[in-house]
Amino acid sequence: MRVLSTELVGKDGEQVECGGWVRSVREMGKMVFVVVADRQGKFQVVFKEPTVVEKAKKLGLEDVVVVRGKAKKDERVKEGGAEVEATDLEVLAIADRSLPVDIAGKTETNFEARFDHRVLDLRREKPQNLFRIQHTICQAFREYLSNEGFIEIHTPKIISTGTEGGANLFPVVYFDREAFLAQSPQFYKQMLVGSGFERVFELAPVFRAEDHDTPFHLNEYISLDFEFGFIKNEEDVMKHTAGSIAHIFTRLKEKNSRELAFFGIDLQVPQLPVPVVHYWDLPDVFKKVGHDFPDPLGDLSREEEKKLYEYSKKEFGSDFLFVDNYPAVKRPAYTMPYEPNPKYTRGYDLLYKGLEIVTGGQRIHQYDLLQEKFKEKGYDVDNF
Amino acid sequence: MRVLSTELVGKDGEQVECGGWVRSVREMGKMVFVVVADRQGKFQVVFKEPTVVEKAKKLGLEDVVVVRGKAKKDERVKEGGAEVEATDLEVLAIADRSLPVDIAGKTETNFEARFDHRVLDLRREKPQNLFRIQHTICQAFREYLSNEGFIEIHTPKIISTGTEGGANLFPVVYFDREAFLAQSPQFYKQMLVGSGFERVFELAPVFRAEDHDTPFHLNEYISLDFEFGFIKNEEDVMKHTAGSIAHIFTRLKEKNSRELAFFGIDLQVPQLPVPVVHYWDLPDVFKKVGHDFPDPLGDLSREEEKKLYEYSKKEFGSDFLFVDNYPAVKRPAYTMPYEPNPKYTRGYDLLYKGLEIVTGGQRIHQYDLLQEKFKEKGYDVDNF
Repeated sequence: MRVLSTELVGKDGEQVECGGWVRSVREMGKMVFVVVADRQGKFQVVFKEPTVVEKAKKLGLEDVVVVRGKAKKDERVKEGGAEVEATDLEVLAIADRSLPVDIAGKTETNFEARFDHRVLDLRREKPQNLFRIQHTICQAFREYLSNEGFIEIHTPKIISTGTEGGANLFPVVYFDREAFLAQSPQFYKQMLVGSGFERVFELAPVFRAEDHDTPFHLNEYISLDFEFGFIKNEEDVMKHTAGSIAHIFTRLKEKNSRELAFFGIDLQVPQLPVPVVHYWDLPDVFKKVGHDFPDPLGDLSREEEKKLYEYSKKEFGSDFLFVDNYPAVKRPAYTMPYEPNPKYTRGYDLLYKGLEIVTGGQRIHQYDLLQEKFKEKGYDVDNF
Repeated sequence: MRVLSTELVGKDGEQVECGGWVRSVREMGKMVFVVVADRQGKFQVVFKEPTVVEKAKKLGLEDVVVVRGKAKKDERVKEGGAEVEATDLEVLAIADRSLPVDIAGKTETNFEARFDHRVLDLRREKPQNLFRIQHTICQAFREYLSNEGFIEIHTPKIISTGTEGGANLFPVVYFDREAFLAQSPQFYKQMLVGSGFERVFELAPVFRAEDHDTPFHLNEYISLDFEFGFIKNEEDVMKHTAGSIAHIFTRLKEKNSRELAFFGIDLQVPQLPVPVVHYWDLPDVFKKVGHDFPDPLGDLSREEEKKLYEYSKKEFGSDFLFVDNYPAVKRPAYTMPYEPNPKYTRGYDLLYKGLEIVTGGQRIHQYDLLQEKFKEKGYDVDNF
């Protein structure tokens, strides 16, 4: 039974079997010291017996090995004191002796080489830790929503028409017909709420044929979506938006302290409720941080979103800020208008440290109003 | 705060707010009785006060309502004794007075009408219960694997070449290039195991351009996938295959007893380990259930899979049976050969009541052998 690097210290003196990827090989007199990485971390292997020493000397970086021997807790060992005094060495796979990516990260490998050899690139500590954090985010998101009575849905990705008028769609050759890749599960979510499930979520790929090249655009990404009915207005949705994120942060602190420490991140679980500013108040809000935003229906730039972080930090001590009631021109046709002033909507963004991380809102649930709003946007209602 | 149908009985005598879809309207003298369904079940609403009675009389099937009044536990009420004596009625949306689908299911609606009006069709109890069971299956699968040290991955769905030689792929117009929809995350899974994550899983859509029309083929479906390294052979994989299913069944019994009862299903959590037959023993195995299967490398038909259920029930009292060591001609090129007789592989199927529900195996981890096997299948190795 294989023992992981992080379990070794607790097995001091026991016979163990460990395995992983060779990260360094050092000869010291008649001994060989090898650092091996597994999915949890690293451990050191000492080879002393002549037969295994000869074999160990031939090891190269990224060879995949299984070693058997005695676990030794040794405070001097950099890898958390985890050491194995190995009497047996099995080489499962031999790596090329010249590697295109420096996995230890001592020298920076260029972007192209990293992506040409992504299997090696991902072995670096940084992506390893990122993927582990991502794992927790996904599980915690579903856990929160499941506990709140939401069920998971799986909506079609091959569709016959787009969500928002048909722009930015990837065409698919679907036998003898044309189809498209779904850019959002939006309408399916709403239909499933109306199908009696009331509360649904999906965590799945979406596809956007945007010919952009910025860190804020991707042609294929994973969208975390939820939707529910029997709400009073968008404030009920904001409650679960903030609630799900507070739950994710709590789980990250519990399960990924090692990974967060690697990135030097001290995560602050948001205090609920998260502060809210209304779009029409933005001119006043920006005044407090010395910025001029004259038009209460104007666009928010990336720079201005960052300014709002300054504001929320100063005013509420909060990393999070809801901007509610976005102007109707900025929002999809199905967004509920804000009745007292229909130039605004019941749609919001959630900013985290000045970056938009969630967009949401109340949807129109009246058929006639929905048709009217679609026509206003110039959509052909018969296509939906 | 809204109270759900299943919570009503516990609130006897309290003021409550409930909501849902109207499933029946009955006038009895000066009173109106309305059955309303929400995401948990159904409850009865009694209207006695003249002002609300008049409004309630106008209700039609599938109108969406919110009612306020006093919760009453009444054993005579069919809906689990859940009743509301309503003093207020709010109609959120009015349904068409002629519905194309009979949601109560008293008359069978034809297939075409059901799929043309899927939003209504899904309100029937059967799909409601199916989706709730599906929800638990997905959560339990991820929960089991997360607890076993697997992490969730999200692999690209737009790809440049296929997993198994390029058949059955849907082409995608990817800007000015041709791409395809992924028919399996297989190679990504293996690469991520080799990227140091060791244990990965994915639950995501896969796309197969098969022009079939059987209950066993779909062009787009959700695939539950896991993959891990540092195994001895396929038996380690079978352990987690059976383990994950035992966990799913356990969770279903805990969380979905109501839904299972609706389908009349008494789920048996598999006893571990699940019994195994080796492919070369099939001639002998079939003899025990009076069937002739002369060729130990021959195909297994659907009928023969059902016969194997008869065998596993009789021999082991088990609904589950592993068929291990499938012939090499039936398996993908990357399947590890069974060394003592390379006409067989270390690939298996798991049958549940005679239906194949999982396919798996050990993969080849030696580069040279993998190349050789790809060439044997006639693949151009440079395409991978």
